[in-house]
Amino acid sequence: MSNRVINFYAGPASLPLPALERAQKEFTNFENTGMGVMEISHRSKEYDAVHNEAIALTKELLHVPDNFKVLFLQGGGNLQFAMLPMNILHSGRKADYIVTGNWAKKALAEGKTVAGDAARKIASTEDEDFKRLPTEDEIKVNDDAAYVHFCSNNTIFGTQWKDFPKTGNIPLVADMSSDMMWRPFDLKPFGLVYAGAQKNLGPSGLVVAIIRDDFLEMCADNLPKMLKYKLHAEKNSLFNTPPCLSIYLLRNVLAYNKSIGGLEAIEKNNREKGAILYGVIDKNPDFYKGYVKVKEDRSFMNVTFNLPSPELDALFVEEAAKNNMVGLKGYRTLGGIRVSMYNAVTVDQISTLASFMEEFVNARG
Amino acid sequence: MSNRVINFYAGPASLPLPALERAQKEFTNFENTGMGVMEISHRSKEYDAVHNEAIALTKELLHVPDNFKVLFLQGGGNLQFAMLPMNILHSGRKADYIVTGNWAKKALAEGKTVAGDAARKIASTEDEDFKRLPTEDEIKVNDDAAYVHFCSNNTIFGTQWKDFPKTGNIPLVADMSSDMMWRPFDLKPFGLVYAGAQKNLGPSGLVVAIIRDDFLEMCADNLPKMLKYKLHAEKNSLFNTPPCLSIYLLRNVLAYNKSIGGLEAIEKNNREKGAILYGVIDKNPDFYKGYVKVKEDRSFMNVTFNLPSPELDALFVEEAAKNNMVGLKGYRTLGGIRVSMYNAVTVDQISTLASFMEEFVNARG
Repeated sequence: MSNRVINFYAGPASLPLPALERAQKEFTNFENTGMGVMEISHRSKEYDAVHNEAIALTKELLHVPDNFKVLFLQGGGNLQFAMLPMNILHSGRKADYIVTGNWAKKALAEGKTVAGDAARKIASTEDEDFKRLPTEDEIKVNDDAAYVHFCSNNTIFGTQWKDFPKTGNIPLVADMSSDMMWRPFDLKPFGLVYAGAQKNLGPSGLVVAIIRDDFLEMCADNLPKMLKYKLHAEKNSLFNTPPCLSIYLLRNVLAYNKSIGGLEAIEKNNREKGAILYGVIDKNPDFYKGYVKVKEDRSFMNVTFNLPSPELDALFVEEAAKNNMVGLKGYRTLGGIRVSMYNAVTVDQISTLASFMEEFVNARG
Repeated sequence: MSNRVINFYAGPASLPLPALERAQKEFTNFENTGMGVMEISHRSKEYDAVHNEAIALTKELLHVPDNFKVLFLQGGGNLQFAMLPMNILHSGRKADYIVTGNWAKKALAEGKTVAGDAARKIASTEDEDFKRLPTEDEIKVNDDAAYVHFCSNNTIFGTQWKDFPKTGNIPLVADMSSDMMWRPFDLKPFGLVYAGAQKNLGPSGLVVAIIRDDFLEMCADNLPKMLKYKLHAEKNSLFNTPPCLSIYLLRNVLAYNKSIGGLEAIEKNNREKGAILYGVIDKNPDFYKGYVKVKEDRSFMNVTFNLPSPELDALFVEEAAKNNMVGLKGYRTLGGIRVSMYNAVTVDQISTLASFMEEFVNARG
């Protein structure tokens, strides 16, 4: 433990140490098979058990209703931005997009590449530099929308939807790459949620998607096989060789999550971390200037703020590094500081950072 | 070492133990960063060094000419089957496909899904159950072909191209998923080669592609971003978060390959393994009945044969398992035995199998 740093990277990011140590221990001899898990056929009973346990744990932790399927895909959020409209926006269908940051914007752009004007922007806070989320009044969903797409947590800007957009019977679709499993949530209004694993779930190169049966039924048939949600669902994500090692590590992370009390306990931790960190910021608003302008919109995953000068930002990052804390530099276009505190970042680690911030403002403020 | 089995799985498959042990040792503390390599930002200098070393080692081991680029992609060979025609078969272009097994057939099918009749089958040995490769005379390349696609090693049937099809100035494209890096080869006639990593290279979930500059120039621009070879090339495969852990393990495998003498030494090993194993088969042709009918077409990666009865096949697999050898069961549609002996399978391990086979034929033949 002592040789580990406190890791605030925005993704790939900190993972629970017990989940990694479990993998480390059996890296060349998985469950006494005499092979590493990445050396075993994906058609073997040994791998099959891991695969199905990862699916079962996803369902259990998120209380996934029976009319949803869990899929393991590849290509990150970016490929989902294209697969979604390729699968759904056929037969004259249209869809609505809410733009609250870079990733939501990329999703819309891919929608337009695939489906042209059938992918429509219905709300955006870009002209306010994404410093808040749109209000309920600002979101006008089209009656003919096949889905409404949004990004549940905006990693770069530090906003996060706590209450999701209200769309009546129109299915929600969310890119949850940076906050999937930060808490339990009601999946029922969603047609599809998807998340690149590399924040809360596991290593990069794996996407966890959860799709509702009636949304799956809407999907196109005449697509290349790897781009068909239907085929992945039919084949239990074993149509081709899945990213077995990544799914195994996901399994380890989820088993650890279960062992510490599930997403209910994790949400409690995350809210405590938020209270501690935003507490320091709100106590020193002239020194730690939060990027997000609406307090309710602030993220429990990525906390963004600027110090009074770029020099102080740089000094903050430098002194934090001396105190064993890494990954605090803000996104390149924003500058400032970004604290990414995904599930694996502990309350203790956030307390350590908060103490450092108190000392820093006392010395330099 | 003693707790490891001899692993003959067809993929995912055996990887070099030193490459895995290197990963195991630093699994939670990569190069004294205090983080696992899968927990570090893909924009960090630490990950960047791994990424670029993996590219450099690929170039070095395969003697990749300067007018080619190495790409790291996702989605396995299956997504390449679609990306290839999506990128190349625009503006009325057509392409030729040679069908020598299930994977070559899938590549053609995806070509047809994407480009209809522009994807043309020009040769096939399917009516002979893929027991040989087409001869030079049987391959009639169309003058207007933008590329000629083939699969360099047919994992299921056990055939492998030693001399590649002659196509003049028309670029070859090869799915080398199951034999990439079994030996050095001349890349110059190729527009593109690609390989899912999970046989000779590393864990599943990573594709290594090598594309020639003029072939890259032919690629479409109006595609979803993740499906554009051009974008991956421009961004050095860092357009989005790559499968960092898989690329790191690839780096370890390639560094190990270099340490043992590069692909020249590996080819020598592979040819020795082939001589030993086919030696036993050819000595006992009525007991070990090779599936492949033309000796020159036999694969150095996957050796396929049937014993005189399905009962003896099953007994062979069972007794081999008692002798610490796993993964020998033939592909489900073929039955019999398949010995997959990718680069990580050693000459000693093949000698052990050969001795077992001699004893088995003496006892049961």
